[in-house]
Amino acid sequence: MSGVHPSIEKGWFTERSDEHFPGQGFSLRVERILYHSRSEYQNVLVFESTDFGNVLVLDGIIQCTERDEFAYQEMIAHIPLFAHGEPKNVLVIGGGDGGVIREVVKHTCVEKVTLVEIDKTVIDLSQKYLPGMSCALNNSKVEIKLCDGFQFLREAAAASSMQKYDVIITDSSDPEGPAEAFFQKEYFELLKAALNPGGIVIAQASENVWLNIKYLKQLMRIAHSVFDNSNYCYTTVPSYTSGQLGLIICSNDSQVNLTTPRRIPTEVEQAEMRYYNADIHQASFILPTWADRMINHRN
Amino acid sequence: MSGVHPSIEKGWFTERSDEHFPGQGFSLRVERILYHSRSEYQNVLVFESTDFGNVLVLDGIIQCTERDEFAYQEMIAHIPLFAHGEPKNVLVIGGGDGGVIREVVKHTCVEKVTLVEIDKTVIDLSQKYLPGMSCALNNSKVEIKLCDGFQFLREAAAASSMQKYDVIITDSSDPEGPAEAFFQKEYFELLKAALNPGGIVIAQASENVWLNIKYLKQLMRIAHSVFDNSNYCYTTVPSYTSGQLGLIICSNDSQVNLTTPRRIPTEVEQAEMRYYNADIHQASFILPTWADRMINHRN
Repeated sequence: MSGVHPSIEKGWFTERSDEHFPGQGFSLRVERILYHSRSEYQNVLVFESTDFGNVLVLDGIIQCTERDEFAYQEMIAHIPLFAHGEPKNVLVIGGGDGGVIREVVKHTCVEKVTLVEIDKTVIDLSQKYLPGMSCALNNSKVEIKLCDGFQFLREAAAASSMQKYDVIITDSSDPEGPAEAFFQKEYFELLKAALNPGGIVIAQASENVWLNIKYLKQLMRIAHSVFDNSNYCYTTVPSYTSGQLGLIICSNDSQVNLTTPRRIPTEVEQAEMRYYNADIHQASFILPTWADRMINHRN
Repeated sequence: MSGVHPSIEKGWFTERSDEHFPGQGFSLRVERILYHSRSEYQNVLVFESTDFGNVLVLDGIIQCTERDEFAYQEMIAHIPLFAHGEPKNVLVIGGGDGGVIREVVKHTCVEKVTLVEIDKTVIDLSQKYLPGMSCALNNSKVEIKLCDGFQFLREAAAASSMQKYDVIITDSSDPEGPAEAFFQKEYFELLKAALNPGGIVIAQASENVWLNIKYLKQLMRIAHSVFDNSNYCYTTVPSYTSGQLGLIICSNDSQVNLTTPRRIPTEVEQAEMRYYNADIHQASFILPTWADRMINHRN
């Protein structure tokens, strides 16, 4: 299989990055390549692994595997949604694979979800190869906009009657490539402008405490310069570098407690969740000492 | 560098196991090999990595890297020690690298620590290549016994006046090789027999919830059949498979609350801890829903 894709050798896909996580690598054994091409925006690879189900890779970085994707989707969706009293209008930026949407529509109070995805290839491939993730993309509550999330927010802010949201979830890829703008101050300002009172935003931080904690500290400073009420939490995902991924969550209301769910999942809701629960919502904000000092003690 | 060690190719060390974590691999870039040989008990490799400091590998499995070892040593040591009201006599089985010992002697109430290590090679190599871990092996509170931990406990149980311990930490390698016996019921029974009233034992579980949760459930059943009061917690360590490692903690006293520290670290103690704190002690027992159902709901 060597030569078919630059990251695949002797039947193993390997994720390495001299720039972002030098000196370490994570590999998955490839059963077969399902798709490999360059879309208008990024390099796209889908393969069937021997032990992690189907795997989506963008620009060489694993986005999700069928085995552990719920750990990411559930936490990035349910932490802000359960921290909110009654989210009705939700915006998801990125995440064309549909995994986050699948979680959002589990909340019966949610009336509308808008998905803004720049790359239609991701949606199409997910519908073909990740049916367990894309299953809710056709839900009647969901509206899909094929455009750049940053532009979408900028145009919305300029419109006379701006649509506003209770929860906004940035389910982007990492800051290299098409998602670069999602990690800058202007983006957080646009998010803030698009929120209803008492609104909550969450974004994947592209890093975790074990990798580039200085970058995380800087990202938290940016978030905090826009939102007084901002916090860091994380989820464990074995196929992500170092086995975890950070999430940055903010509210435009300083009274909103982000670290504790305001609503508790009903028994029916909880039965549909494999990772999220009210206790792990709170535990996900608790950091090891050195990371807590770096991220939460602002100076 | 290829050919020098079977797990090193093109300057990268790779950890894979078809039996224990099929289809996934973790790699570290090798700066240079410091030691490679077969001891009386196991294959031993020490290398300097480009980004994780020096690395100790036993039978092909990473035991520790200088970059993240504190996450493991602190949690396996301080969770039982702070859950105990006043630990004076501590036994560490395995862990000849000295990392756990370094943490144990931070507790001023501890009067004596006995280290039982089967493989003197590990102690010698740690003193040479992992000085930050082995630094407390010469502490006056520490007594080192070079023998098999299982035999040590068996002979202690047969002796007329048995030495007993407040906390016992099993810092073993995985169940293949010399540590196999540490994962069986008789071992837990020997641990129980060696405890003072209100005593606490903790053992690394060799697995985590993402890998072999059925094995973990079985191991918890074994622990629970010996100790009514037993629980599962974990620590995040990027160089361990899937980025985390499970710990099994038990007490012979059903009144001992293992999930909450009984003593809070003093300011001086806390300043010396990079991972452990009272909040993460509690958070480390909180599991994602599917793992909680498997491990904590006995049926």
